[in-house]
Amino acid sequence: MRLSRFPLATTKETPADAEIISHRLMLRAGLIRKLGAGLYTWMPLGLRVLRKVEQIVRDEMNRAGALELLMPSVQPAELWQESGRWDVMGAEMLRIKDRHKNDFCYGPTHEEVITHHVRQDIRSYKQLPINYYQIQTKFRDERRPRFGVMRAREFLMKDAYSFHMDAEGLAAEYQNMRAAYTRIFSRIGADFRAVKADSGNIGGAASEEFHILAGAGEDLLAVSTEGDYAANVEAAETHPSGRPLPAPTAALETVSTPGQKTCEQVSRFLNVPLTGKVKLLVVKAADGGLIGIALRGDHELNEIKAAKHPRIASPFEMAKIEDVQAAFGCEVGYLGPVNCPIPVIADFAAAEIADFVCGANQNDAHLRGANWGRDCALPETADLRMIVEGDPSPDGRGTIKLLRGIEGGHIFQLGQKYTQAMGLSVLDEKGEAITPQMGCYGIGVSRMAAAVIEQSHDANGIIWPDAIAPFRVIVTPIGTDKSPAAKEAAEQLYQQLIDAGVEALLDDRGLRPGPMFADADLIGIPHRIVIGDKGLANQQFEYKHRRADKAEMIPATLDAVLAKLA
Amino acid sequence: MRLSRFPLATTKETPADAEIISHRLMLRAGLIRKLGAGLYTWMPLGLRVLRKVEQIVRDEMNRAGALELLMPSVQPAELWQESGRWDVMGAEMLRIKDRHKNDFCYGPTHEEVITHHVRQDIRSYKQLPINYYQIQTKFRDERRPRFGVMRAREFLMKDAYSFHMDAEGLAAEYQNMRAAYTRIFSRIGADFRAVKADSGNIGGAASEEFHILAGAGEDLLAVSTEGDYAANVEAAETHPSGRPLPAPTAALETVSTPGQKTCEQVSRFLNVPLTGKVKLLVVKAADGGLIGIALRGDHELNEIKAAKHPRIASPFEMAKIEDVQAAFGCEVGYLGPVNCPIPVIADFAAAEIADFVCGANQNDAHLRGANWGRDCALPETADLRMIVEGDPSPDGRGTIKLLRGIEGGHIFQLGQKYTQAMGLSVLDEKGEAITPQMGCYGIGVSRMAAAVIEQSHDANGIIWPDAIAPFRVIVTPIGTDKSPAAKEAAEQLYQQLIDAGVEALLDDRGLRPGPMFADADLIGIPHRIVIGDKGLANQQFEYKHRRADKAEMIPATLDAVLAKLA
Repeated sequence: MRLSRFPLATTKETPADAEIISHRLMLRAGLIRKLGAGLYTWMPLGLRVLRKVEQIVRDEMNRAGALELLMPSVQPAELWQESGRWDVMGAEMLRIKDRHKNDFCYGPTHEEVITHHVRQDIRSYKQLPINYYQIQTKFRDERRPRFGVMRAREFLMKDAYSFHMDAEGLAAEYQNMRAAYTRIFSRIGADFRAVKADSGNIGGAASEEFHILAGAGEDLLAVSTEGDYAANVEAAETHPSGRPLPAPTAALETVSTPGQKTCEQVSRFLNVPLTGKVKLLVVKAADGGLIGIALRGDHELNEIKAAKHPRIASPFEMAKIEDVQAAFGCEVGYLGPVNCPIPVIADFAAAEIADFVCGANQNDAHLRGANWGRDCALPETADLRMIVEGDPSPDGRGTIKLLRGIEGGHIFQLGQKYTQAMGLSVLDEKGEAITPQMGCYGIGVSRMAAAVIEQSHDANGIIWPDAIAPFRVIVTPIGTDKSPAAKEAAEQLYQQLIDAGVEALLDDRGLRPGPMFADADLIGIPHRIVIGDKGLANQQFEYKHRRADKAEMIPATLDAVLAKLA
Repeated sequence: MRLSRFPLATTKETPADAEIISHRLMLRAGLIRKLGAGLYTWMPLGLRVLRKVEQIVRDEMNRAGALELLMPSVQPAELWQESGRWDVMGAEMLRIKDRHKNDFCYGPTHEEVITHHVRQDIRSYKQLPINYYQIQTKFRDERRPRFGVMRAREFLMKDAYSFHMDAEGLAAEYQNMRAAYTRIFSRIGADFRAVKADSGNIGGAASEEFHILAGAGEDLLAVSTEGDYAANVEAAETHPSGRPLPAPTAALETVSTPGQKTCEQVSRFLNVPLTGKVKLLVVKAADGGLIGIALRGDHELNEIKAAKHPRIASPFEMAKIEDVQAAFGCEVGYLGPVNCPIPVIADFAAAEIADFVCGANQNDAHLRGANWGRDCALPETADLRMIVEGDPSPDGRGTIKLLRGIEGGHIFQLGQKYTQAMGLSVLDEKGEAITPQMGCYGIGVSRMAAAVIEQSHDANGIIWPDAIAPFRVIVTPIGTDKSPAAKEAAEQLYQQLIDAGVEALLDDRGLRPGPMFADADLIGIPHRIVIGDKGLANQQFEYKHRRADKAEMIPATLDAVLAKLA
């Protein structure tokens, strides 16, 4: 492609509302343009990247035996009512009324639609297993769309749905998809990790996320320093240490702590470390009442884990402050497990400390030297907290470090959640009706391009991996105003590259070298060939890889150029 | 692809609500599945066809120098308010409110969005001309979606938008697009005609539609028996014959026609041909009053032509019956141009007849022997009717015949309608701001597959042109339960075809020949190779083209098969 016919829309200004580097660079390089909040147009240069990501995903899904189809973006409400999700999905689902006032949504995902089609067409075990996928536009009405295409409202997604006669079949396809995802993320050229994940409101059992590692990532990942363990912090389990509870050494005393409500305030005021404090959070219980959750002072509640505990309400909900004050007779800053008017569950770590500080359940007072089993009953314990850096790895190998990641893919074993709710049944070999097992597998196609930029850029702009670069090589003649030789050689090389099937750009704009090089760097073309009279005098081109510090001279031949691209 | 891994969803039953052959065959062949009114899923077999149409369109648009981008489907209302179309677009535009109660639509077209982007990025004549296109999902909330993907609500469209410094530049790109469309429709393998069209509410001047000819087409085309003339009947102009108005030969008389209100009734009652009657329609005038349109008894009003007449209201609106009766003092069945209380415009053909019959402007009475210029003033004349079969061709060569067509594409010269309304201005060579000229060019990608089926099918199913067939050849071994030779030879040929880059299907389902052949015919694979022991004994395969009546024996070699596909 000639730049004279493929207008770049590069800018030097950093857009004001772009918070992260990929968003800034995508705007500056003219890959995308904003249409509205969370709505982006992929300009020609950006679309080339998007299509390459899409094609890698398609290749590997096909290779894995999945079949591509295309479902509508607009979905009838009836299907969501059948699955029970019409009322569960919140404001993030864009609801629509058509001209006849019938309810629809702009599909945020397609479990209901595919299950509906499968129950129409698939009747026999002979037709299973099957894995259908699509690469299609989704809409999620994010409360606060941000970070450009990273968290846009309208975006391109690959979503796949598999159906199986039994859980073993599902587990096998899950591994097949895990392998396909590994190939996809590798081919795209991303530094990624597959991590254990929570399944969220899609439902189901096993699930893993594929994260592109980047400081701007919205997700925190718990990764072992030694073993293979990796999980989203939301899903990373913690275990009891196995050490016995230390015996009490201090007497219980009530201390006056006027106005000291937070753990940090109390810790400072009483000069005890946060790890020596037990805090009590009050949440709604499964039975409709209140229940206390005891956590170590330095730990944070994991609401997802809490919601899964049988005694805690799901969805998770904090208790109302007035209800707590009515039950305890004091302000919420002074709660504790000793003489507690409501049942208490303790996180494993909180249950392992002795001589701890906690609220006295009366205003302006805390207890010091409190002990489980002596001053209050030994509580039921559970895994209720977020894992933290330095925790032992749940698999017993090494300790946990935290990394930031951008979720690019997610694979789930859904089980029978949708097939059961929507009455999908299939006859097995004995002629008996069974409810198939289902898996689903997503990739955020438009997000991937941005995520790769977060990993791969420098002060001058984007550095595309070859596999998803909009063009692989840019040919830049310089000094063309003085002599025609450079221009002619550039035209010739450009044509030879095109004929060799290489996606080449020719910068035929006739600008000064500085602006041409700046554009090439900003848009991130991996390979650059500069052709000038000086080099040509020695039958040489100048070659520079986008990552290299310096250019080098190579023979002025197609073969020499192709050798550099290989 | 092996049919054991690519499940067909063919059915023998004809779906009840499918009115036209392409809809029936697409459902029966399992190309599409209905999700809701006007909402269809493209199943894997159908998607292969859709992607081929899409790729042909993309190839030719790229070859024509257009640049692909991708705009959001959800568009902010503000842009439509700027262009003035937010209030003009009716219920067909799907309007949406997001979680913040802001107004959006599911884009039925993208003139506003692209003009917005161009005004952001394009400032100088050096950046023009430019032609941006996308292949993207549209939604039009049809009152009565029907005919499957032919008139669906959600559909795939290629829409292109070009911008130019002047009308000459626009006209040149229009011809460039016309040539590209001709290549696209030819490559798809369709029998098509480019016809003059009305521009509808997209606005603008010159426009042509590309129609795939088919009896089920919703559009009527006026095509010359001799010259190149072809137009949508809505847009086909008629001209005065040039013959002088014949002199009156009959006296004016009032005849009693009790209860005879329609032209047909009066014609029968008075035994005069419809061509000897003048009917008067009363419509809203541009000045807010009423105006009469005189048409020959056998002609129909063309509302699009009427709305463009300066004295007639736009948008076109018939007068209310009570207003007409108040003005004329009689029922609407007895109106005529003689002693008419409102102004009259006559269609050219109506103004050319003498001694005509018309309503007497009193109940239960008509006039016989009426004449323009004698019994009433010579009226203003205009082209106000639909062209009919047998009319002289407007270009003076041959006469008009009517054909039915399915609109697959439409090209427009929009002029400055959007660029002006949305304040797009560009600096010319002298540094002066000008308002660019704009063109737009659409192709209904999903509709094309259906339209081709309307042209190309038989009693057994679809007959795909090679260019858009889901697979080009199907290899079918028979008698595999008796001997392994046919199966082995089929596997070998299948692999050879795949290696040669031919999209081949292998029917490895082991069914009886009848059902296998029926499926292959129904899904329309152009070439079929049958391999059985009998043929193999003579080193022969059986070859049959989907259109051929009989199969023929060919040598059992890859080369012989490839020769048939060539």
